[in-house]
Amino acid sequence: MKALFLDRTDKLTLRDEPLDQPLGDGDVRIRIVNVGICGSDVHYYRHGRIGGFVVDQPMVLGHEASGVVVEAGRRVGHLQPGDRVCMEPGIPDYGSRQTLQGMYNLDPDVRFWATPPIHGCLRESIVHPANLTFKLPDNVSFEEGALVEPLAIGVHAAKKARIAPGDTALVLGAGTIGIVTALAAVAAGCSHVIVADAKREKLDFIRRHYDARFSTFDITAGDLKAHVLAANPQGVDIVFEASGSPAAILSATGFLAPGGKVVLIGMPQEPAPIDIVEAQCKEIEFVTIFRYANVYDRAIKYIASGQIDVKPLITHRFGFDEVEDAFRFAATLPGDAIKIMIRLPG
Amino acid sequence: MKALFLDRTDKLTLRDEPLDQPLGDGDVRIRIVNVGICGSDVHYYRHGRIGGFVVDQPMVLGHEASGVVVEAGRRVGHLQPGDRVCMEPGIPDYGSRQTLQGMYNLDPDVRFWATPPIHGCLRESIVHPANLTFKLPDNVSFEEGALVEPLAIGVHAAKKARIAPGDTALVLGAGTIGIVTALAAVAAGCSHVIVADAKREKLDFIRRHYDARFSTFDITAGDLKAHVLAANPQGVDIVFEASGSPAAILSATGFLAPGGKVVLIGMPQEPAPIDIVEAQCKEIEFVTIFRYANVYDRAIKYIASGQIDVKPLITHRFGFDEVEDAFRFAATLPGDAIKIMIRLPG
Amino acid sequence: MKALFLDRTDKLTLRDEPLDQPLGDGDVRIRIVNVGICGSDVHYYRHGRIGGFVVDQPMVLGHEASGVVVEAGRRVGHLQPGDRVCMEPGIPDYGSRQTLQGMYNLDPDVRFWATPPIHGCLRESIVHPANLTFKLPDNVSFEEGALVEPLAIGVHAAKKARIAPGDTALVLGAGTIGIVTALAAVAAGCSHVIVADAKREKLDFIRRHYDARFSTFDITAGDLKAHVLAANPQGVDIVFEASGSPAAILSATGFLAPGGKVVLIGMPQEPAPIDIVEAQCKEIEFVTIFRYANVYDRAIKYIASGQIDVKPLITHRFGFDEVEDAFRFAATLPGDAIKIMIRLPG
Amino acid sequence: MKALFLDRTDKLTLRDEPLDQPLGDGDVRIRIVNVGICGSDVHYYRHGRIGGFVVDQPMVLGHEASGVVVEAGRRVGHLQPGDRVCMEPGIPDYGSRQTLQGMYNLDPDVRFWATPPIHGCLRESIVHPANLTFKLPDNVSFEEGALVEPLAIGVHAAKKARIAPGDTALVLGAGTIGIVTALAAVAAGCSHVIVADAKREKLDFIRRHYDARFSTFDITAGDLKAHVLAANPQGVDIVFEASGSPAAILSATGFLAPGGKVVLIGMPQEPAPIDIVEAQCKEIEFVTIFRYANVYDRAIKYIASGQIDVKPLITHRFGFDEVEDAFRFAATLPGDAIKIMIRLPG
Repeated sequence: MKALFLDRTDKLTLRDEPLDQPLGDGDVRIRIVNVGICGSDVHYYRHGRIGGFVVDQPMVLGHEASGVVVEAGRRVGHLQPGDRVCMEPGIPDYGSRQTLQGMYNLDPDVRFWATPPIHGCLRESIVHPANLTFKLPDNVSFEEGALVEPLAIGVHAAKKARIAPGDTALVLGAGTIGIVTALAAVAAGCSHVIVADAKREKLDFIRRHYDARFSTFDITAGDLKAHVLAANPQGVDIVFEASGSPAAILSATGFLAPGGKVVLIGMPQEPAPIDIVEAQCKEIEFVTIFRYANVYDRAIKYIASGQIDVKPLITHRFGFDEVEDAFRFAATLPGDAIKIMIRLPG
Repeated sequence: MKALFLDRTDKLTLRDEPLDQPLGDGDVRIRIVNVGICGSDVHYYRHGRIGGFVVDQPMVLGHEASGVVVEAGRRVGHLQPGDRVCMEPGIPDYGSRQTLQGMYNLDPDVRFWATPPIHGCLRESIVHPANLTFKLPDNVSFEEGALVEPLAIGVHAAKKARIAPGDTALVLGAGTIGIVTALAAVAAGCSHVIVADAKREKLDFIRRHYDARFSTFDITAGDLKAHVLAANPQGVDIVFEASGSPAAILSATGFLAPGGKVVLIGMPQEPAPIDIVEAQCKEIEFVTIFRYANVYDRAIKYIASGQIDVKPLITHRFGFDEVEDAFRFAATLPGDAIKIMIRLPG
Repeated sequence: MKALFLDRTDKLTLRDEPLDQPLGDGDVRIRIVNVGICGSDVHYYRHGRIGGFVVDQPMVLGHEASGVVVEAGRRVGHLQPGDRVCMEPGIPDYGSRQTLQGMYNLDPDVRFWATPPIHGCLRESIVHPANLTFKLPDNVSFEEGALVEPLAIGVHAAKKARIAPGDTALVLGAGTIGIVTALAAVAAGCSHVIVADAKREKLDFIRRHYDARFSTFDITAGDLKAHVLAANPQGVDIVFEASGSPAAILSATGFLAPGGKVVLIGMPQEPAPIDIVEAQCKEIEFVTIFRYANVYDRAIKYIASGQIDVKPLITHRFGFDEVEDAFRFAATLPGDAIKIMIRLPG
Repeated sequence: MKALFLDRTDKLTLRDEPLDQPLGDGDVRIRIVNVGICGSDVHYYRHGRIGGFVVDQPMVLGHEASGVVVEAGRRVGHLQPGDRVCMEPGIPDYGSRQTLQGMYNLDPDVRFWATPPIHGCLRESIVHPANLTFKLPDNVSFEEGALVEPLAIGVHAAKKARIAPGDTALVLGAGTIGIVTALAAVAAGCSHVIVADAKREKLDFIRRHYDARFSTFDITAGDLKAHVLAANPQGVDIVFEASGSPAAILSATGFLAPGGKVVLIGMPQEPAPIDIVEAQCKEIEFVTIFRYANVYDRAIKYIASGQIDVKPLITHRFGFDEVEDAFRFAATLPGDAIKIMIRLPG
């Protein structure tokens, strides 16, 4: 089958390879329809590695996918050929201590699509465990299905934040993860969310598409803390840190009310300073998140009910035969681009 | 000042009495603008008692109120004359063990408006602690302000339910409390809520006004359990029991997924049977609620943000001089009436 | 191999049968050393069924076991032949929705030893998943290892109760489950536990062996509520209901402080009445439990550290060749008998 | 009355001053019996300030006290003259938002003994709110009563840590706070606690007095991480950081199992770096604490039940007339000194 291989840094090839996999009793075979390009795909493409994960042999990219079931294993009950689906890309060791505790995302042996040496989903078809494959409701499109993956990060962040009804929140960082986090925070119970960033084009995008859901603040144009406290005299209840910037991380405690929380989503390159004494005076808790667990069905329900609209996030579309161009475009991403979506021919 | 006294069962009088109260340093004096009639007001009117609370001397009715601050005590910082406000009607002993633990609603010495022997707010003005008096945003009307009280019950139920993002819920009972609970459950993170009742007029009302937020089910017209499981094959995550009916309470565990919760809001007259073994097989938790604590500001924010629209709940309006008629009407409430709102002249 | 079969109600046979099982890559083969007799084993023996679980073909009894690993599958890392172990008797479907959520005990497809039609462990050896097999520290005996199973119920109850440091508790019922729950509650943070029952011999046993850990109350000799309130004027924080008696269940809310919890462990035969209004006035939560999940290692650590001493629970011992006598004795259990332990010859 | 005044840095005077206070309806007057010297008392003595809190007028030191009630206000129910008591030293604004939410320790207007400009308790008598005054059981001495204050910090840390039954923990720092935290962690459910420090005398003290409760590790004599992982292959469940050392804070995430928590008790002088990415890979939560709330009664119960023995902590005793010497001794504290206790003559 055709697949997009990252052969080495900066070297992508769409080519035919025998990637067929046997179908286990609990598996389904899926013809891929849509795949979104994630920042991590682009990072592997340009740098060949993320932290300790090194691409040292050709690897198929892509982990945000939707498709159609073409074959189901003997023990699969809830799916059948023809079903429209999206797929959770990390396969844990099902018997591990972490999985039994309900945090399979933290299983050290998890095999995650397009994380070396595991092949991703930019390919014509794939075999996947049925219990990590989710049927799309009729009113959820294939493109929306491919967006469940990034949305799941926001929903997981909202879940771990244990939002109380009516909490107010500040999201630091208006990239894709900042936006899906803000969307999830409102759906999950926040009464008001401010998204702050220095990139005017990102803030413009949000204002254009999500005006009724949350407000924005341009940190180059004023004092964010004064702005936050004007609307929330005691501070907000939750800060979602989605920038990874050390300065943003250090500032987080200052925006919070006593008893507030910081959810650390962004990944700074080095250990980052926290104002612990300021945090202690308000008994602030810091929550960290890693991917997601047990939220795919929840993200799908939010899309299906209309509480979260992910469609505006797709700003650019490419065919599968244009996928190399799509990555070149993604590598020099203009500020008004959010999500690039690949359409497979199948 | 004029006030509506319940002199004895079935005997209401709107009359002048010297009810003026001294203004403490931490108090505000409020001119009352709107008061909603609650089922408990009507119950005292018709029966003279609720459980152990007996009206044995004339008592002013009413506890759902909004108004305007006319005077503020010396130590009051956040309110000043002219502020539009609504008021939380239960005044706890601030130093009690329950208050210090954050559950002041459970303080046995709480003094709650229109619960004998404490006078209520169907009167021209009232003195109230400033910290239980909440400023209304410009886009929240006096009528909406008076509806914060019943909505607070729903928000408190949603808070105690610890809703996870995307949870599904079933509300048993489509009375006022069932509706505010469903509204709060969706705002607080539920992806889908079904409201079930046998009263067609209540269900019609919901369909007419809240169609986009939740669905309804007429339990006289089909099998509720089959209906719930069709949409939620493993069951819903939360049942909000808002009917108080022993049959509904007994049925609650059957609708739930493993790990689910029942929130018991309705108050049955006698101890009611629970299917404990069925609950155990799914490790279901039962949460009970009593009024509310620390949610008034949250309910107001939901109204101000547009996430909850309480305006449709007001189906009938009366002037203060018609308040005796209003209670007579309330005592024989037609099925299509939800909330009766009194407007004071001030 | 030799195994104890329940052929039909009241008909036990210790006989040789070819029960050998293949060893999977993730399994270990264990020579059984000790097996405790549980009330459910005796119930199957005398009645042939528990609820919907019916013994309709010969079934090996026993699910409280310790032993020695004699063979380990290829992918087993943490165990090797010679290791002394105890085993968690319920094997879930590892990919099920409940397992992924961390509540594998609620997986409807769990296969639990000696629950029809699954054979139990009163046999010379057994094959078991390595991840449900736990190494015993050097200072934990085989007999203590076999008692980890009942203790796990108490530890799970304590975990689900979310005990806050210094909470006080009342345990209703002084049977084996009541005792292990009281032991776990003290180890898990309670500052004081009262165990109440009508059976004087059970209370005498507790006083003799666990005097320093918790106190007892004979409900035939005084007013339990007065006794509880004398030591806890606002009520206790937690009631562990371990009797299954409808009267005890109905009484539970009366012993509690505002914000308290009832943990429902005992299994009444019919739906049992709860005083919901009394519960609401104190916002009491009801927690139900089903077996246990993720606590075996925790129960072992409590035994190893000396915080929980289970050794006194073993009041009678039988050899494997006397196992039929042991069950006849268990069926007419005297009041001073707690746990009957079988020793296999291996 | 006689009181110990800090007149300015390094200048203490025990002198007579008219400090008598009026007795409010909800207050008690207490004759002070014992006062422990805290590191913060010594810090004010030597440096005249802690952060923004500056001693700019004479202030009575001391906040760890026990005594005897000599007079009770009219509305005081649970205390009477002659009662032996200890006192929680922080008086919140009872109507503040934080108090109503159950976190009165975070109320910005709290008045805390011996925090400028509030006088402390090293004086013959004091007037205090009865609801912050706790009766000592007969088997709890005045000295133990005065130790409830530092123990409350450990109990609060254990409460905020939400310890699950059988959790393992590492305490970084073997000072007084490290020790009371370790004591509280074991009482509150931990199955094993390691206390690590570089000060041999502190570790020797622990081994001598608390050998059966937790183990120690000398970080100058080996690799702490290897030591922790040998006993806990996946890491411990909780790290209590009680040293305030930036190096210790940075190391904390490395000791933890997936899903673990760091409780930040020590107060570093500057913002301290955290390895956020390492924390994210294990979804570690960071909990911060500030003094305590709602735990005094719990700390007393643990002492009364024998689960926590604080008596060994008192290593040196001084009379009230020797209190200036006591502070001079405290300012150059030898390594084997833990708590200095003052005995008042009354």
